[in-house]
Amino acid sequence: MVRISVKEAKDRITEIFMKSGVCEDESRIIADMLVEADQRGVHSHGILCTARYVRLIREGKMRPNMSATVVKDNGVVAVWDGNHSSGQILGYRAMEEAMKKAKEHGVGVVCVKGANHFGALAYYAQMAQKAGMVGTVLGTGDSTMAPWGGCEKVIGNNPVAVAAPARNEVSPVLDMAMTVVANGKVSNMKRQGATEIPEGWGLDREGMPTTSMKDYYTIPPMAGYKGWGMAVMVDILAGTLFGGGTGDRAKDCADGPSLMMIAMDISAFNDEEKYYKDVDDRIHELKASKLAKNSKGILMPGEIEDGRFRASEESGMVDVLPENLSMVNDLAAEMGIEAIQTL
Amino acid sequence: MVRISVKEAKDRITEIFMKSGVCEDESRIIADMLVEADQRGVHSHGILCTARYVRLIREGKMRPNMSATVVKDNGVVAVWDGNHSSGQILGYRAMEEAMKKAKEHGVGVVCVKGANHFGALAYYAQMAQKAGMVGTVLGTGDSTMAPWGGCEKVIGNNPVAVAAPARNEVSPVLDMAMTVVANGKVSNMKRQGATEIPEGWGLDREGMPTTSMKDYYTIPPMAGYKGWGMAVMVDILAGTLFGGGTGDRAKDCADGPSLMMIAMDISAFNDEEKYYKDVDDRIHELKASKLAKNSKGILMPGEIEDGRFRASEESGMVDVLPENLSMVNDLAAEMGIEAIQTL
Repeated sequence: MVRISVKEAKDRITEIFMKSGVCEDESRIIADMLVEADQRGVHSHGILCTARYVRLIREGKMRPNMSATVVKDNGVVAVWDGNHSSGQILGYRAMEEAMKKAKEHGVGVVCVKGANHFGALAYYAQMAQKAGMVGTVLGTGDSTMAPWGGCEKVIGNNPVAVAAPARNEVSPVLDMAMTVVANGKVSNMKRQGATEIPEGWGLDREGMPTTSMKDYYTIPPMAGYKGWGMAVMVDILAGTLFGGGTGDRAKDCADGPSLMMIAMDISAFNDEEKYYKDVDDRIHELKASKLAKNSKGILMPGEIEDGRFRASEESGMVDVLPENLSMVNDLAAEMGIEAIQTL
Repeated sequence: MVRISVKEAKDRITEIFMKSGVCEDESRIIADMLVEADQRGVHSHGILCTARYVRLIREGKMRPNMSATVVKDNGVVAVWDGNHSSGQILGYRAMEEAMKKAKEHGVGVVCVKGANHFGALAYYAQMAQKAGMVGTVLGTGDSTMAPWGGCEKVIGNNPVAVAAPARNEVSPVLDMAMTVVANGKVSNMKRQGATEIPEGWGLDREGMPTTSMKDYYTIPPMAGYKGWGMAVMVDILAGTLFGGGTGDRAKDCADGPSLMMIAMDISAFNDEEKYYKDVDDRIHELKASKLAKNSKGILMPGEIEDGRFRASEESGMVDVLPENLSMVNDLAAEMGIEAIQTL
């Protein structure tokens, strides 16, 4: 890990996107999201993605500025065609719109097809959370997983994120893909020269369990048939329901991935004061329950990431993988932008 | 297993509830749901529950007829207090209302606190499915699971069901709890005298893995911290958000369990013809993908249960566990109702 300044990283990455033809406003949103993922320790969705997005813009697979078409909108539910704009900006604007709808109707649903890689879903769910709402995000991804009982890559790891606000306790946020582990983890191990992967992490081309990196082909669904079942239902809800890309059609060279954003306004469900008291009490109750032998503690979903994020915000510094920083600085050099310094 | 007539089982169980003070309409709905669970092979939520519900009515913990109070209703989102009416009837009426709201606004959300044991969530999600909508149901249950890193029973296995309609393919329905296996499976093994449980199914009182039935205390969350994270978010969405019971407060002698029903009307999201074509194609694509070595086939969520249900509907007969039938027939005898005959 190398340590860099949060502000400097955001500024330089904003410049990189601006030089790629993205307007300042959108460049800043994308840069914020990428750096925030690293601040939370989710390096697979952090500044690493900068080069990928610049490449997509250059190849004409990602519009430099958002140009979405409203396909349907009845005030409560909307479907947008993102026309291959940035997944980040589409996600950001769609959650804003879902929250606006929720403010008025208690719940708002905004679906986006024709998107692009949308990074960590936690960010969008947390937009709602920070506004005192419950946010749920479902996304389709291109084929990385085999069906339970199959061995062909035909379905994405279709992530889900849910975030709810707390007042005195850490606000919980769940962000998970339907595979046992993130694809990025195994790819990282491969890049670092590992020849073995842990038991349960890999299936070979015939769908049989393997611990050999050489034979590894897909990652099994979490919890076996349950994870497969969830991946199927997310595929329908966040894709097929509104004509969004699923499986190979979710690739950036095809229909692109798609998203469903759901915001719920607490005041439509409860007295807000009661909710905040209850949710704090409940989190406290769960965390204060008896620890298992040798346990280091009971953690709420997202609590580790939140701790990292707070520490980073406080110090103004963020740890990133050196190879990811090099990738960004190579792009910066190419564009005549100052390099991000390590501290 | 013993085989009984579907019609006879429904009629007799309807009579049992009517003799317990439940009106005919509601008695029939409860009987339908219980027998349908057995028809789907989900015996833990089938006629087994008859005695439990009659006991709850007798103890005054379940109102014999529905008496729900509308706490909030803005047209799109509603919260009901079930006042400890039957969980089945509350769930049924709440999904009906969510579907009505979805018909008008594209999406409808109905939450119920103060419910009672609500049986298999698949039933409610399938009500939407059969009406050409997407149904999602989340429920809280009383404490059966320990937190990840903990060893105390402080959270329910908080089930989730999602169902979407298909036209020519089997309509997928996912119904899963957040534990590795259903509590009922281990209880059944115990009743049958097993001294060992499979690896990964049990934790002891200190939260350590065990395969000994004697030491077994809780079932771990599916997929480890992911299942724990989902249980927490369901706890908030289907409980804390609107003041519903969670953990020990979800017991039938306390606040009772609670439910969130979400219905989505396809026409608000897509051209219906396009949706049905796409969803059939997608299911076909997934099922037709290459099988893993030794695999017996790729199954959609709910497909096994659907096969059993269709066969049962066709023959008019259903297989139930002999001990569950005895329990029902004991109640019938006590009430002067004819026994259900085995075929």
